[in-house]
Parts: sequence; structure tokens; C-alpha cells
Amino acid sequence: MKGKLYALTVAALILFVVGPSTASSLDMPLEGITPGRMKQLFEDLAAFTDSAPPSVTRLVFTDTDMQARKHIKQLMTDAGLIIREDAMGNIFGRWQGSDPDAGVVLSGSHSDSIVLGGRYDGTVGVLGAISAIKALREAGFKPVKSIEAIMFSTEEASRFNIPCLGSRGITGHLDPSILDSYKDENGTSFAEAARAVGYAAASAQEFADKTHWKRTGLKIDAFVELHIEQGPHLEAEGFDIGIVEAIAAPSMIRVEFTGKGGHGGGMPMLQRNDPSMAAAELALTIEKAALGTGASETVATVGLWDQSPNIYNAIPRKVQLDIDIRDTVGERRDSVIQTAFDSAAEIAARRKCGFSTKTLFAYPPGTGDERILNAIENASNKLGLSSKRMISRGYHDAGLIAQIAPTAMIFIPCRDGLSHHPDEYASPEQIANGVKILALTLAQLAGSPSSEGKDEL
Amino acid sequence: MKGKLYALTVAALILFVVGPSTASSLDMPLEGITPGRMKQLFEDLAAFTDSAPPSVTRLVFTDTDMQARKHIKQLMTDAGLIIREDAMGNIFGRWQGSDPDAGVVLSGSHSDSIVLGGRYDGTVGVLGAISAIKALREAGFKPVKSIEAIMFSTEEASRFNIPCLGSRGITGHLDPSILDSYKDENGTSFAEAARAVGYAAASAQEFADKTHWKRTGLKIDAFVELHIEQGPHLEAEGFDIGIVEAIAAPSMIRVEFTGKGGHGGGMPMLQRNDPSMAAAELALTIEKAALGTGASETVATVGLWDQSPNIYNAIPRKVQLDIDIRDTVGERRDSVIQTAFDSAAEIAARRKCGFSTKTLFAYPPGTGDERILNAIENASNKLGLSSKRMISRGYHDAGLIAQIAPTAMIFIPCRDGLSHHPDEYASPEQIANGVKILALTLAQLAGSPSSEGKDEL
Repeated sequence: MKGKLYALTVAALILFVVGPSTASSLDMPLEGITPGRMKQLFEDLAAFTDSAPPSVTRLVFTDTDMQARKHIKQLMTDAGLIIREDAMGNIFGRWQGSDPDAGVVLSGSHSDSIVLGGRYDGTVGVLGAISAIKALREAGFKPVKSIEAIMFSTEEASRFNIPCLGSRGITGHLDPSILDSYKDENGTSFAEAARAVGYAAASAQEFADKTHWKRTGLKIDAFVELHIEQGPHLEAEGFDIGIVEAIAAPSMIRVEFTGKGGHGGGMPMLQRNDPSMAAAELALTIEKAALGTGASETVATVGLWDQSPNIYNAIPRKVQLDIDIRDTVGERRDSVIQTAFDSAAEIAARRKCGFSTKTLFAYPPGTGDERILNAIENASNKLGLSSKRMISRGYHDAGLIAQIAPTAMIFIPCRDGLSHHPDEYASPEQIANGVKILALTLAQLAGSPSSEGKDEL
Repeated sequence: MKGKLYALTVAALILFVVGPSTASSLDMPLEGITPGRMKQLFEDLAAFTDSAPPSVTRLVFTDTDMQARKHIKQLMTDAGLIIREDAMGNIFGRWQGSDPDAGVVLSGSHSDSIVLGGRYDGTVGVLGAISAIKALREAGFKPVKSIEAIMFSTEEASRFNIPCLGSRGITGHLDPSILDSYKDENGTSFAEAARAVGYAAASAQEFADKTHWKRTGLKIDAFVELHIEQGPHLEAEGFDIGIVEAIAAPSMIRVEFTGKGGHGGGMPMLQRNDPSMAAAELALTIEKAALGTGASETVATVGLWDQSPNIYNAIPRKVQLDIDIRDTVGERRDSVIQTAFDSAAEIAARRKCGFSTKTLFAYPPGTGDERILNAIENASNKLGLSSKRMISRGYHDAGLIAQIAPTAMIFIPCRDGLSHHPDEYASPEQIANGVKILALTLAQLAGSPSSEGKDEL
């Protein structure tokens, strides 16, 4: 009976606390979030670049990145946040809530860029989270759960040829050997580069261990990532906001076929084992397999085709295909990968070619959490902004965090769907809309007692 | 009756002249053709190079090529030959025969090289012809027909991206506009480069006209080209000599497919018009068409595959295929080209891709002349060298000369079939064998009255 009474009390509490708190969260004045302020924030951060404006080149752990990190930490301090960093360089800025035992409401993205990238990829989520929290503080909001802004370390693959190292470290989806074995173009590994700038651990394993959420004590109640869409849909369809309910599970596989080569004139057709013909067969097989799932979410792209030699009158000796395969359903994507690998073996045997197959990465899909999705939707409606639910086929740190905590993303439109490009652009107004929605979402999520806390009542 | 009498007289003359002359031709001492002398000749010529030995880089009309030409003209002079050059830089060295009205017995090849080529491609035919004529002179041979050594100008496509300009000019298989429009990497055309070194004509058309055999009065009774095999067959099968009875008709076609591209993650399969998939279909169609002729002489190679962009997660916007198609029967080759073009159109229409097709070149096949082939065979037998009849899938100036005159080629083995490579090699003994056979072949052909001359009796 005591248990039942507790349960009833909890239920009443939830109705009481969530109800009014949500309502008041949505009435928050957000005067600090203006297009002008957003414009200035992005101009300031874009100054940290190793290439000429409007492009941004900011590879992780370079001098330029370290200056940008210092700048971001200053913004966090100015917003009243308490900063901590983990072993791999993920930066957290904490606003303490009234319930010290509750999981945190976490929001952020990355600030590193590709070579000759743009100003908005990632940075919208970092500057957005800091701005949203600052605006909530200024509005007098009192969070129950702590709210944290996060800057994930090295989301881009630009320097070490592998993406999302920071969020992989947090979630435990990291093979630590990568931190030693993957090198930048100067032959420097992540571990070496991290140590050189002061993020130190004795070994790759220790880097990973010391970043893992279980070791750092990171307890996430909800994670929200604000990001530009990097696609044309919102702009084309005239929506202000995308509510991302799934992040496709991307993968990259590599298939190589080899043969003895030879002169294009000299070698009779029947004596050939031409790897380009094997590759052509495989490409069509993969296309058929992707179409064959019947789901529009299944996509496969033979993006890279490198044959060697590559001159008109030589039979190639080697063809390398790098293939992107994505799906919102992990098993369905994996079935296309399996078809590709099985077909490669069959084609190679039939054509007497050598072959090798390799999965370079295969992330799990990220599924949006309905509670967070609803909070985003409430915020959009309150602000009179139009929104649509959508999926992200691009990958983000949120895709990894979704493996360990309730997660969702907020997309804002970007011009022409262009990203990873110097002309990447989101207007100050669009950014301000996104940050306001983020603020109201964080307020809704942080204003109520933690669901984990409830279990402990 | 007078005609009949003449004909009978001619027949008797032929039996008389060809018989003994051939026999005596085959008994010629050829003491000047020794491995040691051959070794020296090739070392001397290889010194004219713009890259480090053992590689040879000798692009037409460079300072190095002009020095090599001077050297070759000196060798011709030393052999007692009278030199003339045509408007496009083809160099002829003439040994006057006793019948000034007879067509010439012509032999030679080219001395230009690719970048980082070897010592023997082409040069075996040039130095071989000069050495063969010199040896015949020294042996006291008296030719009825004149014998000429020739160095064809710019057989390699290395500088102006198009091969055999000299022999095309001679035979009239030259689109003169090429001489202005095709440029080297510095933007210099053939016409500009030729004028700069003293081969002058007022216009591209005039270059071509002044080189054409009808304008220069070149009357060829027979043409023989000595060359390294550039393939592995003679060496692998242990033959000393290849008697080339056909030169495959090579062609190069280019097919481009275009599509709208897009992000590999973002674009649903059904909305794509992926040019790499169109290219894969076409590649397999061409392979099938080549196999479908049922002739081992039909070969087709998708040697160059360039897609743009070429990264794993982007649908390409353009794929360019450069395809080599060859056959000893021109019509059969052309049917494969036609299938390729028809299929490209069908595939592009079905996949909603843009496309373009282009024939970059399509030479006619060269058919060996039985009289010359027999003369080569006689010479081989006389010298106790093993020979086989074979085809050349590689292209040579002989392929063009065969369009206007009786032609054949003599192949000598080369190590590992390697050519267009710094390690290209034929031994001094193998070269000496080839040059001796060439000399005895020229003697047989030049010792008898010209067949054209006979018609005029």
C-alpha cells in the first residue's frame, strides 16, 4: 500500500510540476536572442580560421582551434557556466539545477570544421546552446535539472580521417587503437596531438576510459542538438524548423578488386580478369539491393571509383570502390552491406579477380525521443514557427549520444542546402529562431523533475 | 599481240630477276650488323634525353629531339644516304637504285618517346633501317629500286596528345586543324612548335598538303617497319622474330554521363540520376559486345573511369569513360563502337542522365602484304631464326602507311613484354637479328624491278 501511495503522489506531483512548469517555460522572454547578437557571435567565431573568409578551416587541436576553444570557454564563462573538460577535449559548461541528483539536460555540437568549410556547421549548436542558456538565465528561469552546453571534440574527420571521436569517447563507441593508429597528413595521431595541447592520458585506452560517460559520471536526462539542415528540404518547402526524429545509420564500406592488368590492345577478352568489370557489376548489384528494400530511407552510393592504372588503353590492375550506405533502420542497412560483400565474393570468383572488403565504419541509427520531440514542437508552436518532422541522413554527434540517452535534433534551414562549403549560410533570423526554440525546449526539459529522479522517490 | 609479247617478256624477266636476285640477296654478308655495334648505336641515341637514364624522354621538336634528329641525319649521311625532310619533319635518307622510276622500298619508324619512356620503342626501326642499308652497301649490294630510311615525325601522342602526325601527314589521314588546335602543356600547337625549329608552312593546311605523298612525289613500292613487340608473346613462346601480318585498327571513344549529383545520404534512390550507375551499365554492355563478335581479335577496355566528385558520400555529377576498342577487322570494331554509342543513348534516356559520345580516333586496320611477309620469312629461315606470324594490337606508323602501300612489320622480342617504360629492353643480339632480317628483306624487295614499274613496260 505504501508503494501505491507513493506512486499516486508521484503521479500527482508530475501532473502538478510538469503542467505549470511547461507552461511557464514556454512564456519565457528571450530578449537576448536577437538576429544582431547571432550575427556578431558567428562573425567572432569565424575569425578563427586557417583559410581566407568566407571559408573556415579549423582542424582540431591546431593553434586556431585552441584559440577558438578559448573563445568558446570565455563565452561559457560569460554565460555563468562552470567549465570542465574531459580527457579527449570535450568541453562542458554547466548551469547547476536545483536537483543535484538529476541527470543533465545537455545541448551542443562541434566547432571544428573541414578544410575550406563554412561558418555554421556545428557552430550553430555550440553557440546556440550557450546563447539559449544565457537567455534562460537572464529571463530568470530556475532549472530543476542542471543544463549543460557541450562542445564535442573533433566531430569532423578532416584531421584524423575519422569522425565523432569526442562523442564516441563519451558513449563508449570508440576503438581506442584509432587514437594511435589514425594519423593526420603529418603523421601525427590524435593521442599525440591531444597531448601536445594539454589533453593528456598515458595511453589510447586511458584517453577513451577517462572520457567514457560511466567514468566521468555524466548522467544525461536529455540531449538536444541544434544544427543547420545541410540539405534543401526545409528551405524548399518553406519550413522554419525541422524536428529530427531519426538519424540515419551511415556506413562506409570499401571493396577492392584486383586483376593482372595488361595492355588494352594486347590481352584477349577471354584471358582477362578486369577489376573494372567486376566493380561495374558490384555497383549495379548494390543499387538494386538498396532499391530492393522498398524503403525510401535506404540509400547506397558508389561515391568513389579509383582505378589503377587509369588510362584508356590499359586494363586496370586494381579498382577501389568506397561506398556510402545509410538507413534509418540499422538491420536493413546491414542487409545491403551483406549483399554487397556476398556479391563481391561471387563476382570475384566468377571473374577470377582478387578482392577484399572492409567496413570502414557502420554507426547505429539514432532514434528521436518522443518527449524531446514534443518539447521542440511545443516551442515551435508557441513561437509561431512552422515545423516538420524529418529524418537526418547526415550524421551528427547526436547519433552517438542517442545510443546512451534520450535525444533529438533541431534543424534550421540553410541556403540551397549547401554545407561543408565556404558559401554555407543560415540567416541571423533563422539562427535566432532555432536558438529560441532550443531555449524553450531546454526549459521544458529542465523545469520538471528528472524521470530517473522520480524512480528514486 | 605486242601487249602479249611484252607481258611474256615481263613474266620471264620477273622469273629471272626475282629468282637469282632473291637468292643472292639472301646470301649477303652482313658483317656490319653486330651486337656490339647495335649496343653502341642505342647507347649513343639514348644520351639524347630530358630525363635520367635509363629512362628516355624525347618529345618532338624540343632541343633534345632536335639534337637527336641531327644525330640521326649524321648517321644517314655516314651510311651514304641523301637526306630530305618534309614540311612536318619526317626525315628520309635515300639510297638511289638503278631504276629511277621505281617506287622506293621504305623502312623506318620514329625516334620520339613518351615522358619517361625507354630506349627501344621506335628507335629500333630508325637505327635498324639505317644500319641495314649501310650493311647492304658495305656488302656490295646493288638495288634496283631505291631504298629509303625514314624517321617519322611525332609518332607518340606525348606532346600534342595525338599520335602519328608525321605518317598521317604523308598518307593524307590528317585533319589539318589538329595542327593548330591540339596544344602541348604549355599551350603550343604542332604548327607553332614546328615553325620554331624551322619546319615551316604558312598554315596547318599547307603543313598537311606539303607532307602528303601525292605532293612530295613519294611512290612506295613496299614499307617495312622493324619494332620491338611491346608484348610478351615472342619471348614467352621462344621465337626470335614476329612477322606481323595485320595491325589492329585501334580506336578511342569517350562517353560522358552527367546527373544532378547530390549528397549520398540525402538523395533518395528513386530521385537519382547517378552517372556512375549509367557508366557501370555501359561498361558491361561494351564488354558483352566485344565478347559477342566471337573473334579473339576484338578487344574493348574501359581503361579510364573518372568520376567527379569522387568521394564516398557524394553522388557523382559526371563520369567520363575513355574506352579503347580494337580489332583487325575495321567493320567489326566499328560495330562495337556503334553498340557503345547506341547503348549510351538508351541508358542515359532510361536513367534521365545527360550524355555525350565522341570518337577521339578510329584508325583503319593495316593488312600485311604477302610479298613482304614472304620476304621476311625467307630472311628468317636463311638466318636460322625462328619466326611466327602474328598480329600487332599496338599501333604504329606502319598502320597508316599500309593504307597507301604494301606494308609489313618485323617484331623482335622485348623483355617481359615491357614497353613505354624505363626498363624497356631488347638485347643487342635480338636487335642484330632483327636488323639482319630487315636488311635481307630490303635486299629481296629492292633487288627486283618494281611492280609499279612493270605496269609501265
